[in-house]
Amino acid sequence: MQPFTYYMPTKVICGRDCVLSQGECFKALGTHALIVTGKSSAANGALGDVLAALAKNGQTATVFDRVTPNPTVACVREGVALLAAAGADCIVAIGGGSPMDAAKAIATLAVQERTDDEIFAGGYEARALPMAHVPTTAGTGSEVTPYTILTNDAKETKTSITSPAMFPRLAFLDGKYMAHLPVASTVNTALDAFSHAVEGMLSRNATPLSDALARESLHILYPLLRKTAGELTLDERDALLYASMLAGMTIAQSGTTAVHGMGYALTYFYGIDHGRANGLLLGGALRLCEKKKVPALADILAACGDTLEGVCVTIDALLGKKEDIPRARLEEFAVRAMGNKNIKKSAYEPTEEEVRAIYLGAFGR
Amino acid sequence: MQPFTYYMPTKVICGRDCVLSQGECFKALGTHALIVTGKSSAANGALGDVLAALAKNGQTATVFDRVTPNPTVACVREGVALLAAAGADCIVAIGGGSPMDAAKAIATLAVQERTDDEIFAGGYEARALPMAHVPTTAGTGSEVTPYTILTNDAKETKTSITSPAMFPRLAFLDGKYMAHLPVASTVNTALDAFSHAVEGMLSRNATPLSDALARESLHILYPLLRKTAGELTLDERDALLYASMLAGMTIAQSGTTAVHGMGYALTYFYGIDHGRANGLLLGGALRLCEKKKVPALADILAACGDTLEGVCVTIDALLGKKEDIPRARLEEFAVRAMGNKNIKKSAYEPTEEEVRAIYLGAFGR
Repeated sequence: MQPFTYYMPTKVICGRDCVLSQGECFKALGTHALIVTGKSSAANGALGDVLAALAKNGQTATVFDRVTPNPTVACVREGVALLAAAGADCIVAIGGGSPMDAAKAIATLAVQERTDDEIFAGGYEARALPMAHVPTTAGTGSEVTPYTILTNDAKETKTSITSPAMFPRLAFLDGKYMAHLPVASTVNTALDAFSHAVEGMLSRNATPLSDALARESLHILYPLLRKTAGELTLDERDALLYASMLAGMTIAQSGTTAVHGMGYALTYFYGIDHGRANGLLLGGALRLCEKKKVPALADILAACGDTLEGVCVTIDALLGKKEDIPRARLEEFAVRAMGNKNIKKSAYEPTEEEVRAIYLGAFGR
Repeated sequence: MQPFTYYMPTKVICGRDCVLSQGECFKALGTHALIVTGKSSAANGALGDVLAALAKNGQTATVFDRVTPNPTVACVREGVALLAAAGADCIVAIGGGSPMDAAKAIATLAVQERTDDEIFAGGYEARALPMAHVPTTAGTGSEVTPYTILTNDAKETKTSITSPAMFPRLAFLDGKYMAHLPVASTVNTALDAFSHAVEGMLSRNATPLSDALARESLHILYPLLRKTAGELTLDERDALLYASMLAGMTIAQSGTTAVHGMGYALTYFYGIDHGRANGLLLGGALRLCEKKKVPALADILAACGDTLEGVCVTIDALLGKKEDIPRARLEEFAVRAMGNKNIKKSAYEPTEEEVRAIYLGAFGR
């Protein structure tokens, strides 16, 4: 057995109304919480539940609901300033990947000062304010990872930051918050989760346990993936959220690979949703794995219970009409992507030529 | 999906010579370690590796190697006294379940005083000295659970104590420490691990994630179980240890059930090794599950890749000649067992009559 490490210290609490029924768990976090969220958490009911749970515990809260998709350093700085002004000693994140990632950066920068130049320089200590995360999409898995991904304007991409203290103390999983999620958001976030499980298995840092978690995730997620374009029952929402969490546990061990590394340019320059960006590139990456006879591909397909062709057809059906991106831009992205650290983490070791072919193929160029 | 919780915060480090190569991880535990172990850890090389790793970090250590099988409260008290006298601020446990369980109790009682009467009364706070565990058998899984099982003379049984702080901070898994483990120890501890995975799936507290971990454990463990009576390669030792850890992660969520609850009497009154005691009772419990049409049984057998008959034959072959226990004692144990909390946690809800039948069947009475 190759050497490996497993670590995922977040306590995960799953079930209908768990924020309310297990709300006493918030007590250990602190006395005044900064709630980091976007605009939709009030509508889906999550904000109300968290505020009720905190109030019942005698905890107070300040709401920071100005997190936008693909959070910037400026947004994080605004959150840190509000946290300090409010005297908050803990954080509750509510939302999709953007509020959760912003919350992790706020929790870290609140106790470790960094200049803008140093933010992406790594070397963070394992210190952060304690956090609880309440995902309201089933995709990012950020509630069980030690990563935050922020927009990096200096490098014109999105860049991850990591520290063991970025694992939330608590994650509350309740599919009811996704009951009225728009179809496009459901599809895109499910593609993100699918990509996490697949990329985890294609990572050079895959471990026996991350693979087991990924297989379990795919086994549950893949049949649901086909359904995300239609109506989902609340049970299916719960299952999707659970599978997304398993995929998060996977990448917490293995990290992501070329698909994520390549997708960031599509998001940064064309505003393509993160999950959709991964979905656009995933089919090409899987075909490359077949060509290069990557052993993990067979395990991925077995866990999905489908053929490579079937998986590609499923993804394509969810993606619909592709964006119109000039060939020259895609070729430029291929050059850029080779500088991304995630590329080197792929077990299939894509060359620049292969990365270019995936980009071009994704948009029918 | 039924509500459930997942929590397992231990960092697990696996691989050949990981205590030495990842020894810097010990640094965060403290400055002076109490090493809690039995007599064999010097011979299997684990004690030497731990002492070398600590010394390299500039950490000092006091060795407490007087832990005996089925540790008593007196043994734990002796460890707490030595810890205090030595001024130790952290603990490294080396050994099978007995040193690991003793270490957890020492780490807890060192910061939470209890009279002998109160030790098994529960209600422990989530406070304990930080611990690293180095298992030298593949069976207990204690390195990734929040439980310690101590001999409870007042009730003439073994009783578990739990607190979230009993999860070790670190677990180092290296099959080399088992290279010269006697066959009987290998067999008995493997039966313990097998019982954990099976009982986890038969628990009323089973969760989707504990089941996934149990299936993965059984998939690896069951084919190896048949081999434990012979020579194992070092790779097989590693795999057995990994599967045992997965089974530990399982029961960390689900707890154990009737088999463990019934086994304690065999250990307390007849000195039967803990793993063997479980093995003796497991076949009968599985047959009862078949009779009662417990759904999890099919999942267990599928993960093992064998029939119920095949599993029972495998276990019986490993057990060999059964102990000679009078029928009257076994009937008395059945009455006792009904007071054990683990009985009620079994999905198959055994009646006293059924518990009696399992005891009698186990010894051919």
